[in-house]
Amino acid sequence: MSLIFSLPAQEELAPDLEVDLGQARFPQYGRTLEDFVPGQVFRHPRGFTIEAGVAKAFAGNFQQANPLYLNAEYARGHGFRTCPVCPQLVFNLVLSMGVQNDSEKAMANLGYYQAQFLRPVYPGDTIRSMTRVKTRRERGEGKPGIVHFQTLGINQCEEVVLQYERKIMVMPRGDSGRPPSAVSGAAPEFPWQESPGIELPVAGTADTSRLTGDGTYLECFRPGDIIAHFNGRTITDEHMAWTCLVGNTHPLHSDRVYSTGLSGAMSGEPIVYGGLVFAWLEGLASRDVSENALWDLGFTEGYHTQPVQSGDTVAALSRVLSVTPGPEGLASAGVMTLQLIGVKNLSAAKALEQYGKDLFLKENDKKDLGKEKIGAKIFEIERRLLVKRRPK
Amino acid sequence: MSLIFSLPAQEELAPDLEVDLGQARFPQYGRTLEDFVPGQVFRHPRGFTIEAGVAKAFAGNFQQANPLYLNAEYARGHGFRTCPVCPQLVFNLVLSMGVQNDSEKAMANLGYYQAQFLRPVYPGDTIRSMTRVKTRRERGEGKPGIVHFQTLGINQCEEVVLQYERKIMVMPRGDSGRPPSAVSGAAPEFPWQESPGIELPVAGTADTSRLTGDGTYLECFRPGDIIAHFNGRTITDEHMAWTCLVGNTHPLHSDRVYSTGLSGAMSGEPIVYGGLVFAWLEGLASRDVSENALWDLGFTEGYHTQPVQSGDTVAALSRVLSVTPGPEGLASAGVMTLQLIGVKNLSAAKALEQYGKDLFLKENDKKDLGKEKIGAKIFEIERRLLVKRRPK
Amino acid sequence: MSLIFSLPAQEELAPDLEVDLGQARFPQYGRTLEDFVPGQVFRHPRGFTIEAGVAKAFAGNFQQANPLYLNAEYARGHGFRTCPVCPQLVFNLVLSMGVQNDSEKAMANLGYYQAQFLRPVYPGDTIRSMTRVKTRRERGEGKPGIVHFQTLGINQCEEVVLQYERKIMVMPRGDSGRPPSAVSGAAPEFPWQESPGIELPVAGTADTSRLTGDGTYLECFRPGDIIAHFNGRTITDEHMAWTCLVGNTHPLHSDRVYSTGLSGAMSGEPIVYGGLVFAWLEGLASRDVSENALWDLGFTEGYHTQPVQSGDTVAALSRVLSVTPGPEGLASAGVMTLQLIGVKNLSAAKALEQYGKDLFLKENDKKDLGKEKIGAKIFEIERRLLVKRRPK
Repeated sequence: MSLIFSLPAQEELAPDLEVDLGQARFPQYGRTLEDFVPGQVFRHPRGFTIEAGVAKAFAGNFQQANPLYLNAEYARGHGFRTCPVCPQLVFNLVLSMGVQNDSEKAMANLGYYQAQFLRPVYPGDTIRSMTRVKTRRERGEGKPGIVHFQTLGINQCEEVVLQYERKIMVMPRGDSGRPPSAVSGAAPEFPWQESPGIELPVAGTADTSRLTGDGTYLECFRPGDIIAHFNGRTITDEHMAWTCLVGNTHPLHSDRVYSTGLSGAMSGEPIVYGGLVFAWLEGLASRDVSENALWDLGFTEGYHTQPVQSGDTVAALSRVLSVTPGPEGLASAGVMTLQLIGVKNLSAAKALEQYGKDLFLKENDKKDLGKEKIGAKIFEIERRLLVKRRPK
Repeated sequence: MSLIFSLPAQEELAPDLEVDLGQARFPQYGRTLEDFVPGQVFRHPRGFTIEAGVAKAFAGNFQQANPLYLNAEYARGHGFRTCPVCPQLVFNLVLSMGVQNDSEKAMANLGYYQAQFLRPVYPGDTIRSMTRVKTRRERGEGKPGIVHFQTLGINQCEEVVLQYERKIMVMPRGDSGRPPSAVSGAAPEFPWQESPGIELPVAGTADTSRLTGDGTYLECFRPGDIIAHFNGRTITDEHMAWTCLVGNTHPLHSDRVYSTGLSGAMSGEPIVYGGLVFAWLEGLASRDVSENALWDLGFTEGYHTQPVQSGDTVAALSRVLSVTPGPEGLASAGVMTLQLIGVKNLSAAKALEQYGKDLFLKENDKKDLGKEKIGAKIFEIERRLLVKRRPK
Repeated sequence: MSLIFSLPAQEELAPDLEVDLGQARFPQYGRTLEDFVPGQVFRHPRGFTIEAGVAKAFAGNFQQANPLYLNAEYARGHGFRTCPVCPQLVFNLVLSMGVQNDSEKAMANLGYYQAQFLRPVYPGDTIRSMTRVKTRRERGEGKPGIVHFQTLGINQCEEVVLQYERKIMVMPRGDSGRPPSAVSGAAPEFPWQESPGIELPVAGTADTSRLTGDGTYLECFRPGDIIAHFNGRTITDEHMAWTCLVGNTHPLHSDRVYSTGLSGAMSGEPIVYGGLVFAWLEGLASRDVSENALWDLGFTEGYHTQPVQSGDTVAALSRVLSVTPGPEGLASAGVMTLQLIGVKNLSAAKALEQYGKDLFLKENDKKDLGKEKIGAKIFEIERRLLVKRRPK
């Protein structure tokens, strides 16, 4: 049903309304340390319907080599309804929706933990996001504290499609600060599960073997294998457009007036939003390690160890951490855990030559080991994948 | 039905056809002052079918916070068939389709007036554009004159979805100039209405309150309120790709050989197409003022007061000009008129501190008031929105 | 059918697995000269389902003026199901899918020949690619040789949608080189046809004349006509994102560490992937020559004569080589062959003034003619189009 109405022509109003600077407001988003209370649950605004064209543009630009995200015929051959949306895009959207409430005032994203993609998201699905404050650690007056979150991505059928934990570093507001002028809504329940079920289609029977290489089946990997991925990717100003498209509202990523106005080490050109860096690194690695993956199960212990800016070229290395049988009922695949390392402005092979074993140590563990951090290293994470065995 | 035919192999032809420079042509587009006759109506070429993915990429990149343009479930909850296409994209497309005929030779876009979005445009709709010359003002030989247009955007059902007026400044051709070598077709009728009906869906009943903030309902605004929007956006070279995508053919925006070859003040790097600047400013303001809007009714008195180039960071301020009841039959919403001001390379708060009340004076009125223009101010307009009241 | 399973929480594994640098691998893609055997057929990985939004973004960004690729109503009026995917996008995808196997180690793309678009590709179609080695020419130890390929683009119905030939220059591996660590699969058959049928819809009857200009019907062109296209396009860093989106994996185009690490003349900023340069030039020419085309039949003798980098502005010239009647059964259209020339960092008109007839000579023929190559000339090709006659 429609309503039809007419309005009078739009008359100019501004000249006749006196400007009253006393009526000025300066809404800010994000919360300071005191504004987080353990147990609080936030429903994040907006939500996002993922169009097929956006999902494909993401898969392509972030250089996914797994045909599951590129080729609908291939995806259907494996039992999916069509190409599922890249889990990396789902992660970027779910995290970004929460930024306005959770981290728009954060100084740093400290880490990602226990991320699990619980079911496919398809083009046309609508995702929204919720966050619960798990813990808050204060470190004294005037010092930034640490907030530990749990976040859920939920589809239009109220099914959880992603859950993960994240820690951020954020300053206390102190007496002089403003309370948050806009917040997410409170929610009654938060369907986080410690050991959630993962729901995947049972593979179809189509022969799709010709669309992936022969060197990336489960059998091709042994624990300890290190793969230096050949291609790097120069990240351009495009990162700002992607940051906006996935809905990340932190001005550090796309507002040069803000980023250059910061004091200290963070001052300078906008920093590339970390979720995009992760997506590029995963894409660069994909033709060597995940071309034959059936699913990105999740990741943990993820740290952005150095910032990336427009003009930097990123490259990736993977190390196989374990290869184990798949879940019951899925004999055709196994679970592989990989360490993914990102570097900038040198090739992966060169990084391996230059830094050797130390590339694979967590940067935060180095101080205790009496080792220097690696300035060229930008990212470290452990990923868990479901990978096909070679078809017989 | 199909036709199947074969062609002989394509033989190389160029070496055997003598080059005759006398057969060279140099087609140009756009019209000079003399080429506009009041009353003339032009049907613009091409048209554009708006794909869902393009509409979503626009909404995201231009930082729309209103879930109406992001979340299909939310849109359906408000009676829309799915997410309508952002009115800003509709405006950009309709204007751009007319550039080849109307303004590809224009020196400046002077202003937008009486824009009204008459009904939703949905993904899959095809929009075309028509223009009528309203008036032409000559200002003497060798001096640029002013042409006043009326433009319509029309969907595939022959319904007008947008009408607006625009003024441009354009040089006369004089005796030595070339007549336009390609023009839009003439059209028999021009369905402009002085007081057109606006057709909107009647709101549904779904609870969608959790997807928008609580601070942007109609009740939250009083005439005189000034809102300095926190985030700015650094505009990158991406603007050229968007200019091309919306079909704007003026070379000033995406041809550096052309832009640097101009003489005078306009010479330099390509200028960001104004429609995109407007879209970004509206997006930056959206989470503070239009997150709960049901419709962009239109705008008037819009002026680009300084150019924006790649690398500039834009920021926005809004001032509430009026808040009135909605049209009959729509008790759940009201009409809000806002002044939207854009600045570059400083934050909105800083601009307010620095320029105070003068930010809200029209730049063209300043001379008469004995005031200086503000070099950092890039845009001013009055916008009219239909905004939800807080659900009970 | 779905499978539901749970996994134990993801434990951190890296610290407990000793790093063994002896297990490092350095997979490389592409083949060296010896790795090509005439007659070999490769099935390329991945494939690509072309979403409507991606097809439209391509048509828009690359400045297509032919409404066939922009306006679904227009396309249906001409008998197409909806807007067909731009042949330029199909070409870019089909070529790019083969890069990982065919040319990721190539030093240069030498030329395109005998390209034919055999039927429309529609949004939702999935394209894959196959290549056959036609010939391999060695030129002595340590010298690059030339490989001549035939490539097919095939849709999900196993119909060939595109076939073309290409030559590349590639170094021999010599004794010390690594054999290719990942290859495309071998294929039993290769459905290339010397004189293939072209299948097009029979035109509908809708009046769509108002959406194209009057100056681009078949009758408007005579052999010998030269058209200097007015607008140029500044190519920005966006080229890297497009290169990734179309699936081209050669690091020369999007990895600055790789491109600046090359020795010799190629060392420097990433080079724009040639298929994109071609697409932009065709787009720049389109409103003057192909706005009324019904089909891009194909092209031959295509050469990228100088590299293009981010920041360069490209412009185009066309020369009519022949105008002949259309195939039997299609009296409403004719076949036009055009020479398309690209230049950089000067306008088309200026290039014509400066270089005159020499612009239209093939660069490789110039040495024999005692002429200098033109540094500003970037591209040359002969294109064959099916162009509408003016409706009566």
